[in-house]
Amino acid sequence: MANSSSGESVIHRFVKIVSAFDDTHRSLTVADLARRTDLPPRTTYRLVNDLLLEGLLQRERGGQVRIGNRLWELASRSSPMSGLREAALPFMEDVQSVVQHHTTLGILDGNDVLYIERLVSDSSAVNITRLAGRLPIHGTSSGLVLVAFSPASVQEQLLSRPLTRYTDFTITDPAELRRHLAEIRQRGFAVMAGIIVPESSGIAVPVFGPDNAVVAALSVVVPRQEENVPARVQVLMTAARGISRALGWKGKLQGAVRRSQGG
Amino acid sequence: MANSSSGESVIHRFVKIVSAFDDTHRSLTVADLARRTDLPPRTTYRLVNDLLLEGLLQRERGGQVRIGNRLWELASRSSPMSGLREAALPFMEDVQSVVQHHTTLGILDGNDVLYIERLVSDSSAVNITRLAGRLPIHGTSSGLVLVAFSPASVQEQLLSRPLTRYTDFTITDPAELRRHLAEIRQRGFAVMAGIIVPESSGIAVPVFGPDNAVVAALSVVVPRQEENVPARVQVLMTAARGISRALGWKGKLQGAVRRSQGG
Repeated sequence: MANSSSGESVIHRFVKIVSAFDDTHRSLTVADLARRTDLPPRTTYRLVNDLLLEGLLQRERGGQVRIGNRLWELASRSSPMSGLREAALPFMEDVQSVVQHHTTLGILDGNDVLYIERLVSDSSAVNITRLAGRLPIHGTSSGLVLVAFSPASVQEQLLSRPLTRYTDFTITDPAELRRHLAEIRQRGFAVMAGIIVPESSGIAVPVFGPDNAVVAALSVVVPRQEENVPARVQVLMTAARGISRALGWKGKLQGAVRRSQGG
Repeated sequence: MANSSSGESVIHRFVKIVSAFDDTHRSLTVADLARRTDLPPRTTYRLVNDLLLEGLLQRERGGQVRIGNRLWELASRSSPMSGLREAALPFMEDVQSVVQHHTTLGILDGNDVLYIERLVSDSSAVNITRLAGRLPIHGTSSGLVLVAFSPASVQEQLLSRPLTRYTDFTITDPAELRRHLAEIRQRGFAVMAGIIVPESSGIAVPVFGPDNAVVAALSVVVPRQEENVPARVQVLMTAARGISRALGWKGKLQGAVRRSQGG
């Protein structure tokens, strides 16, 4: 609807405008915005005006604009992720206080893991996850756990794509990755050492929703060679069960905890 | 730009659509959306389509739509609030583990306090704050602290508006509120008992940014008659200084801690 002569919807332009802001560009002038979005200055000016009117952008003292509180509010209040994040946060704090390393909560979104919460440990492993940041599925323990416990079609989708090699340890061969996913599913957790940055290992377990479908991955990022896997898997699994209960889950978690004690 | 015959911008309609979702309506059909937004069905259908294309809405199995992960991601990644929230979270955990009651972080937005983070305690006081929820400024200790430490114009704006009485303890008289704000500013914290719900008290302190301007209010919500104000104010002030330091603040905090020891 309301497409321009180029066929681009106003909504598409809105996404372009909002995407022009990032960690290092939190305030921009309208001219900056036109340049970064490749939209005509006049179009940019009008759209920014509409966005200011609705509070989706806010004007700063210097005349620059930034993302408005209202956008965050609209997105957060009714997002299905807010419930998940809120259920998980107390258990993530427990994990972090016991494990003393970065603790993350990720969901599957397209070809990526989207991190919807992360608790950062000051003096800890290199951690490249960001809040609301994305990492490739096959580059993270969270991604592999999410796929291992998803329907087969999700796994086939991952295995049919060309996969980037980030380090010597990234698994890019489909046959090897398939074996790996089967093992993760059987053991109930993933441990991946140095698959995206050489210094860090990820340990991740699935979080199940009320209908026993995987809804998130709970993980810790620890320095390599200090994985201490058995203890940490038990901590993560305990917390993951707590999150599931908080989400309304009442059934059995595929016997995952029992199995892992043998691993 | 791209206004309809009614003069309503696409952005305004987008806000209407997204606002139609809430805690009890996380999934809606397009027909529901048309009804709840009062937009023509055809317009709603087209706009929903554009939003689905950009991932701002997502289709569920039953054909209903919900807020898309992409909207939350766009809003969170570059919002100025994300930095504040991330700096504050570890200190909020400290407060909650010591005080054992709900801990909130609020900012001033229009006539409201917008809660950008909250840690919930299971067996604690009645707490009507919600994440990404709003409460009226004069109904919360956070709101009064935020106004007390804001420029005089913000205070005048509050005092010039008619103020709703929520309980017998809500202060609605401008002269009395002005005295109260002066006292909060002088003591460095606010304690408000039962001003919005009779069962709970709020204790709040200001959080200052690098330029010594107030950027947020840190508060705990406790049962009435169990305020234990002196100890809790000290805990909150300690945490608030930590947040300020994490935000890059290097100066002096208006001697607030010293003053409060006398209160």
